[in-house]
Amino acid sequence: MLEWKNSDELASWKKLKDVRLVDVRKELGGDNGAERVKTYHVPMAEGLDYNFAAKAVDKDVLEALAELGKEAQLAEKYEALYNGEMINTGEKRLVLHQLTRGQLGNDVIADGVNKREFYVEQQKKIADFAEKVHNGEIVNEKGEKFTTVVQIGIGGSDLGPRAMYLALENWAKVNGKLKMNAKFISNVDPDDAAAVLNSTDVAHAIFVLVSKSGTTLETLTNETFVKNALVRDGLDPAKHMIAVTSESSPLAKNEGYLAAFFMDNYIGGRYSSTSAVGGAVLSLAFGPEVFNEFLEGAHEEDKLACEKDPLKNPEMLDALIGVYERNFLGYGCTAVLPYSQALNRFPAHLQQLDMESNGKSVNRFGVPVNYVTGPVIFGEPGTNGQHSFYQLLHQGTDIIPLQFVGFRQNQAGMDDNIQGSTSQQKLCANVAAQIVAFACGKEDENPNKNFKGGRPSSIITGDQVTPRSLGALLSHFENKVMFQGFVWNLNSFDQEGVQLGKVLAKRVLAHDTEGALKAYSDLLNI
Amino acid sequence: MLEWKNSDELASWKKLKDVRLVDVRKELGGDNGAERVKTYHVPMAEGLDYNFAAKAVDKDVLEALAELGKEAQLAEKYEALYNGEMINTGEKRLVLHQLTRGQLGNDVIADGVNKREFYVEQQKKIADFAEKVHNGEIVNEKGEKFTTVVQIGIGGSDLGPRAMYLALENWAKVNGKLKMNAKFISNVDPDDAAAVLNSTDVAHAIFVLVSKSGTTLETLTNETFVKNALVRDGLDPAKHMIAVTSESSPLAKNEGYLAAFFMDNYIGGRYSSTSAVGGAVLSLAFGPEVFNEFLEGAHEEDKLACEKDPLKNPEMLDALIGVYERNFLGYGCTAVLPYSQALNRFPAHLQQLDMESNGKSVNRFGVPVNYVTGPVIFGEPGTNGQHSFYQLLHQGTDIIPLQFVGFRQNQAGMDDNIQGSTSQQKLCANVAAQIVAFACGKEDENPNKNFKGGRPSSIITGDQVTPRSLGALLSHFENKVMFQGFVWNLNSFDQEGVQLGKVLAKRVLAHDTEGALKAYSDLLNI
Repeated sequence: MLEWKNSDELASWKKLKDVRLVDVRKELGGDNGAERVKTYHVPMAEGLDYNFAAKAVDKDVLEALAELGKEAQLAEKYEALYNGEMINTGEKRLVLHQLTRGQLGNDVIADGVNKREFYVEQQKKIADFAEKVHNGEIVNEKGEKFTTVVQIGIGGSDLGPRAMYLALENWAKVNGKLKMNAKFISNVDPDDAAAVLNSTDVAHAIFVLVSKSGTTLETLTNETFVKNALVRDGLDPAKHMIAVTSESSPLAKNEGYLAAFFMDNYIGGRYSSTSAVGGAVLSLAFGPEVFNEFLEGAHEEDKLACEKDPLKNPEMLDALIGVYERNFLGYGCTAVLPYSQALNRFPAHLQQLDMESNGKSVNRFGVPVNYVTGPVIFGEPGTNGQHSFYQLLHQGTDIIPLQFVGFRQNQAGMDDNIQGSTSQQKLCANVAAQIVAFACGKEDENPNKNFKGGRPSSIITGDQVTPRSLGALLSHFENKVMFQGFVWNLNSFDQEGVQLGKVLAKRVLAHDTEGALKAYSDLLNI
Repeated sequence: MLEWKNSDELASWKKLKDVRLVDVRKELGGDNGAERVKTYHVPMAEGLDYNFAAKAVDKDVLEALAELGKEAQLAEKYEALYNGEMINTGEKRLVLHQLTRGQLGNDVIADGVNKREFYVEQQKKIADFAEKVHNGEIVNEKGEKFTTVVQIGIGGSDLGPRAMYLALENWAKVNGKLKMNAKFISNVDPDDAAAVLNSTDVAHAIFVLVSKSGTTLETLTNETFVKNALVRDGLDPAKHMIAVTSESSPLAKNEGYLAAFFMDNYIGGRYSSTSAVGGAVLSLAFGPEVFNEFLEGAHEEDKLACEKDPLKNPEMLDALIGVYERNFLGYGCTAVLPYSQALNRFPAHLQQLDMESNGKSVNRFGVPVNYVTGPVIFGEPGTNGQHSFYQLLHQGTDIIPLQFVGFRQNQAGMDDNIQGSTSQQKLCANVAAQIVAFACGKEDENPNKNFKGGRPSSIITGDQVTPRSLGALLSHFENKVMFQGFVWNLNSFDQEGVQLGKVLAKRVLAHDTEGALKAYSDLLNI
């Protein structure tokens, strides 16, 4: 029997307040530091590993967190979710993104169909379409092959697929898997679409319009913008456009599109990279096999997230440590720092995933909670961040927990030995050095050069960013965010907070304003 | 006589604690809301305007902040800085980035030369070189024109120039000013350089190596990486490389470079966009006239920052309101949200500018301070952010102050009227709507749709992102950060916090490690 209780109603929550604080400087900097690095970790799928040796936890804290995870019924709630319970209570929807990559439990029947079969069917339709584009069965008006795919979407229809594309673009080039270049149009600022169109050979481009409802204003605006440009170039938009949408949307079964692939209401935008939203653009760019490997990687990690012991479950443990830092240590932000240029825009995706899911003040029943919830997420790839905002992370007045990601090999295979080490070795040396510098600090007589340390971090390590490891990495964070939402008793799957701005923007455009809103409209010449 | 006192030693600081808190919901949402929008603003240079009507301030708070600005001697300290006092006390250096764009006060003589003349001389050398590249006097080995410029740098040698280039790229295309495409290599991850090289016609590329000391490991590594690639392509690196460095560096007067342009120790990396660091790449990309307009815009704003009355000085006022939010209202972050695709990477630049300058725990004399200092800065362009992390900004448990930027016109000139409004109108309508939604909120019976409001923001408005307005915008934030550093009594011009990581990374590469550091090195296979 599932119980949906607020965090502060749980006995284990109250107990956590009394657990002795851990000084990570001593734990990691002491004689047992090396042993700690070797033991404070949980293996993940696809060769990844979650290491939390530089977190301010010890046996007692971990036991208390494990109790919290059990009392909050994290494993049971995940099980309910993947078995098709209506977890998104606010919108009265199932939550099925894990089902796009594999079956974890029972058959899920909704809208009269087996949803796993529905997702697989869409994947097959996309694979078939992509193969026809690649082998020249589907061509442009002149009978020429398409060379570029351009995704038109915003939010989850943009950030996740874009981050995944960028993560695999160079890997694909090196491995002969880059079938088409991909580009993305998202911002309603017309300069975004104009810049993409100006740098794209539109006569050989397929545009993927992504909108679940078929009514997202920014996306439809950009679609019309693109269609107008195609017409000006003497091209027929219907020969250059496909749609990813819901079966009931005006974009489905519409002659304005070469094809339509379906998503449904059970997959939120920020969880949609493994649905048709990511599937169309990634299958066109890299081929369906690569997209399939990505799904398999995610599924393998989804399976590990089923582990009932929070201390053996990498997603649950990461989630619980995050809750501990947020609610018991009082830290308001988390920096995501991948030491991989391929993961350039991964932090921007996690920013949406996490902040849109758990940036809430009411619990899943709409009752205000008495504790802080989702943190601010930000980040840039290392080593760039080191030469930017790390100053504050090392010596600022607030402590910011850090989530590192590092890989032993780069993607492109190009590397040189310079001053006794390769670039890849330098990259890895930097992340190793930073973890210890943050956690242990260093005393110095010169107070400007004094490092207090005590700045906790974790690292996910892997061999290389590949479709499989990327899928596992994505799943890790999706499941982490889900588990944190369960602890905080939130609905992590709606986003009512974005509605008010939409309503007011419509009023501005209709000139139905007064007071401050009218004054701001005037200021911006609308 | 300048007095360098900690904030909490100032009488006006203590007084601020007693000033009545302002409810921005009532102020902006009430009958006087429109009037407030029209009066709570300070004009900036180049048609920009700083509007703070949606901040939680009123006459009393503003008067108290003005007192703080005066007691902290902000105007006098700025005057001392531009007149050549040694403001960067930790490193015993003058702080002269304003002097790269104009003379605000007395002649500044250092190292035996007039520094304004030195900066102008470098600008002229760069202009002369750029013109020769553009008109074909300086060409590649085959006598062909160069078409691309690639900046190799990291941190301030990358983020600022990159953000400025991206801000003007489309403006330049539309206005026939794009002389050469620019690209950037920064990360020591070899996949970064490999991706840029693979997508660049290197036979027609000039590489700008930027390193003040000539010893930055990441940058020299990437330089060698590039040189090796050029050699493999049968090209002579010395015919493709220029250096931006200090006069005393090993890169100066070095036959390995077509030319060398000089910066000095009086301009920190994050303040170097208007020095030769930005000058070389931007003059090559857009022509020296455009770079000069950018400098003039910055100089005009620098002049406004001299205004002694904090309430009439846009930089000082922005700085003081930020301090009020940080130290008296307890907010830990600031989100930077430009409604302009051109300013795509401007938040990443501000992130370094602000967090590296004021992320400090000791005052300028090395004594720990008893108050919080620089906030976490993050942001993405609107409208993308709206569909990403705005959920937390609207309904999360923490309040995050917001810094909007909006322009009445786009750059590319391409726009379509779709559903009764242009994309540009939709963009502007969204920023107007968001300001009011954040500040005023909206009550709703459904607690999921309830918006508490009280989330403060400011907006800088302008006509268009041009070289001049971009210069003014950059100067605004540089000076804001400087004034905040003065209030907090910090040295905003050093960055000792980045050193420890560098030292430890060298030890890892030399295999001179033990304990946890060795264990992490092993984990990453170094």
